[in-house]
Amino acid sequence: MSTNTIESINNEILLLQNKIKELKISKKDASLEVNSMKLLKEQLKVLTKQNQDSISSNNNNNNFTLKTPKGTIDHKPEAALLRKKIFSTLESIFLKHDASTIDTPVFELKEILAGKYGEDSKLIYDLSDQGGELCSLRYDLTVPFARYVAMNGITSMKRYHIGKVYRRDQPVMTKGRMREFYQCDIDIAGTCDPMVYDSEILKILCEALTALDIGQYTVKLNHRKILDGIFQLAGVPADKTRSISSAVDKLDKLPWADVKKEMTVEKGLDEKVADKIGQYVGLKGQGYEILEKLKSDPELMGIPLAKQGIDDMEILFRYLKVYKVLDKMSFDMSLARGLDYYTGIIYEAIHESSAPPSRSVNPPVPANSSGSSSSKPPKSSKNAVINEDGIDESTVGVGSIAAGGRYDNLVGMFAESAGKKMNEQVPCVGVSVGVERVYSIMESRRKASQEKIRGKETEVFVLGLGGVELEKRMEVATLLWDNGIKTSFSPKVNPKAPAQWKQADDDSIPYVLILAPKEYAEGKVRIKAQLGKDQAGAEDNKGEEVPLESVVAYLKEKLGRS
Amino acid sequence: MSTNTIESINNEILLLQNKIKELKISKKDASLEVNSMKLLKEQLKVLTKQNQDSISSNNNNNNFTLKTPKGTIDHKPEAALLRKKIFSTLESIFLKHDASTIDTPVFELKEILAGKYGEDSKLIYDLSDQGGELCSLRYDLTVPFARYVAMNGITSMKRYHIGKVYRRDQPVMTKGRMREFYQCDIDIAGTCDPMVYDSEILKILCEALTALDIGQYTVKLNHRKILDGIFQLAGVPADKTRSISSAVDKLDKLPWADVKKEMTVEKGLDEKVADKIGQYVGLKGQGYEILEKLKSDPELMGIPLAKQGIDDMEILFRYLKVYKVLDKMSFDMSLARGLDYYTGIIYEAIHESSAPPSRSVNPPVPANSSGSSSSKPPKSSKNAVINEDGIDESTVGVGSIAAGGRYDNLVGMFAESAGKKMNEQVPCVGVSVGVERVYSIMESRRKASQEKIRGKETEVFVLGLGGVELEKRMEVATLLWDNGIKTSFSPKVNPKAPAQWKQADDDSIPYVLILAPKEYAEGKVRIKAQLGKDQAGAEDNKGEEVPLESVVAYLKEKLGRS
Repeated sequence: MSTNTIESINNEILLLQNKIKELKISKKDASLEVNSMKLLKEQLKVLTKQNQDSISSNNNNNNFTLKTPKGTIDHKPEAALLRKKIFSTLESIFLKHDASTIDTPVFELKEILAGKYGEDSKLIYDLSDQGGELCSLRYDLTVPFARYVAMNGITSMKRYHIGKVYRRDQPVMTKGRMREFYQCDIDIAGTCDPMVYDSEILKILCEALTALDIGQYTVKLNHRKILDGIFQLAGVPADKTRSISSAVDKLDKLPWADVKKEMTVEKGLDEKVADKIGQYVGLKGQGYEILEKLKSDPELMGIPLAKQGIDDMEILFRYLKVYKVLDKMSFDMSLARGLDYYTGIIYEAIHESSAPPSRSVNPPVPANSSGSSSSKPPKSSKNAVINEDGIDESTVGVGSIAAGGRYDNLVGMFAESAGKKMNEQVPCVGVSVGVERVYSIMESRRKASQEKIRGKETEVFVLGLGGVELEKRMEVATLLWDNGIKTSFSPKVNPKAPAQWKQADDDSIPYVLILAPKEYAEGKVRIKAQLGKDQAGAEDNKGEEVPLESVVAYLKEKLGRS
Repeated sequence: MSTNTIESINNEILLLQNKIKELKISKKDASLEVNSMKLLKEQLKVLTKQNQDSISSNNNNNNFTLKTPKGTIDHKPEAALLRKKIFSTLESIFLKHDASTIDTPVFELKEILAGKYGEDSKLIYDLSDQGGELCSLRYDLTVPFARYVAMNGITSMKRYHIGKVYRRDQPVMTKGRMREFYQCDIDIAGTCDPMVYDSEILKILCEALTALDIGQYTVKLNHRKILDGIFQLAGVPADKTRSISSAVDKLDKLPWADVKKEMTVEKGLDEKVADKIGQYVGLKGQGYEILEKLKSDPELMGIPLAKQGIDDMEILFRYLKVYKVLDKMSFDMSLARGLDYYTGIIYEAIHESSAPPSRSVNPPVPANSSGSSSSKPPKSSKNAVINEDGIDESTVGVGSIAAGGRYDNLVGMFAESAGKKMNEQVPCVGVSVGVERVYSIMESRRKASQEKIRGKETEVFVLGLGGVELEKRMEVATLLWDNGIKTSFSPKVNPKAPAQWKQADDDSIPYVLILAPKEYAEGKVRIKAQLGKDQAGAEDNKGEEVPLESVVAYLKEKLGRS
């Protein structure tokens, strides 16, 4: 069968030209051949033009690179399968907890996303203005959920959502920080008695991280009202609350000295105020232990906001104990979280690989910089992985693997902006699992264990020895497919045996069903289990003879199916 | 617990103002309350600014509408679950046929998509130029696959891909034609003996459409070489091939008279040439029947291209007979398909709902137009559904539900554009299942059958009668969750019984586990199966008393699990 690249069309044209020449020499009619050649020349013209269109519409005037856009990747079969496993593990836990799923479009009206992400708004991808509505790619799954709830007048819902989100950030591909990445969110909208939904979300989070089998993890907890109360006690001016919050949040990466400097020098906070904050934000440990410290502090307990938060935490720890997850928690006064919309409890799950590999607690530095004045850059290691932005990825930690909190205002804000009268506020609490980071942890563990990963699930290979027609292999395959058995065979009419064995081996297919002319004429086939070379009996393994009518039952039994 | 919309913050401020007044009157210290009020006023300022930011960044100066962008929808739980069912049905069939899955980014570099879709290129969504690479949202899953194959130097692969694609088309939402929609593709890349992979793709397509249980369907088949051969025989000038092709393709919607008129009047074809085409493109019917007609036509068989195509079809029908799907096929000379990149067999699956509901074969007309001069518009029906573009959606058919063909050039074209030397051509053949159209068919069937659809899978509701603390319900729920049982309970500390029964009923939860103080103290619970009101024994149904330690085993048995 002829194929049709520009090259092979040229070849066909050459052949036709020769044929035409011959015919004309023998004075025979060559009009059909001439027409065929005209048609091929026209196809050539079209293909060449398409080629040129492709080339001329890109920057390099000649070739362009075959690649995915910066910060995005293809998921090859083994990777796609591992992600699917992560998703089904999470999904079964969400379903256990009474949740339903929704899906929302990958882009929203620009005004829906505007103003929701503070400084991070500059990381939003916009769609081009092509004459219709202005849209942007979704930045997370939380704002779409709040829009969905407000739009549908929902007052109560447990929803999970697994989908891709988009951020024009600096990517760190080897640590799972990409521009297009999956998030797995579960959120509960609706009123409840204090901390009931909050505790269930934390229970779900712990069940999920345990089921994913990624090793040790900790969930850092804090409460925005306690933080706001501390700021009030210390005397932080109300208009500096958010900027001081974001300074406090850096305590997981920077030492207190640096953070205090940022507060006082950069953000103009009084030193005494900063010191007072410093008395509290270093506190972290077991839930009840820290709770006692806070409760026995009359100054702090005298601030109404702080007391509310502390009371909430006491209720929360009681429920977390019933849920048997209190031991995973770290009550951490330095956790502040960037987003403005949190109003109550906040949390972040970290893994042993979350922190950067080097001992320093510095943020990632470009490999060729001299580092900031107040901190030493990590030693450039032999294992440096310099990416296209000049960052040494080996100095970067995976970061947190899940995060969330309570956000009571968001749905109401949407309803108000849309002029919708909502009788009740719809408070929400939820958590987002960073799938790509979990994936990169699981992938390292897999590589270390040298587990063999298949990208497909094929169970039986139908092999034909000389003389058994292709149609017979198709017939047998059809019988197996009709009975739900995953089957393949060589796409050649008359394939040689070695090539067929190779196909079965390359794909690690566990069973080979052999059709040999003599046996097949007698209504029999041979089925051989593919054993690894080092397994017992591999050398003597000749398979079993099975009558054709019992093949399905035989294979189902071997495959562990009824 | 206080909630924080602008309204409730204002309320809190009012309360504090009163308190401060009282304290000052009694000459007490009000500084803490004054500070709390300042903090709340600052929160108010931030929220109001956020609100205004949201509002001012949209067109209407006051409110904006809460909606998804034109042509996109949210998938509510029941819809999301039905789509998931469709995906797993398709996926299990693809896996049976030796395929692996990949995932690609939702946007590609602009130059990758440029020049691949002919006239449809104007329907591509672009991302805004934000200073980096220029990108566009993927238009289908085929071009990304070809890019993936070329990029990774793959010569042989069976891949399936379920994902969303994006087209700035005129939407017809009630018939599943949207701007963002799922496709389920399976393609086989690599050389094979003639028609082996082509026949397997058709086998997979039929297995899929049968498994989806959508009712009667037909697969229309044709071959580009036969069409090109017919054009050559008729004398179509080489440069008019594609435009005449696209006229022929309209024969499923327009009568021959209109198509001939388009060919001669609009596209300048000689009338004799058009008539010759007309002799062939009306042919359609059973595979072998049409094949015989063509084979017994010496003129056509004398055109090399046409003979190649006819030979291919003969081999194909032989394999389709072995695969037991030949009866689903219609060999249809009028099928031409729009896309330039098909090089061999082409096919389209249609359903009884594919054609417009009215008897005419006209394309959808705006409800207020007077119709084209050569054909009458369908009668405007009482059931007219006028969409925002003025189209009456009730006059539109669902269209084809799956389509595809062989495309041997595409991978090679990518490789060449990228300057990659590829030793072999990588021929491909595949099919794309129009999930949204299948979904809209299944949804109509569901509505007709009035089947009750749940959006969640919760199995047990833990109900507490007066005096049994929330923590006890949490404990029992934890026991059930630890054993994989999907469980929920009321989020109130002291819920009334009627509200709890309502929650169990609203969510159609099949089992209720009742904790009553006396029984619970004796280590027993009561488990009640929720029967429908009309089911036998509903009135006497008081449930069974079960010891706490046997609860898991009891429920697993009832739920049909080991």
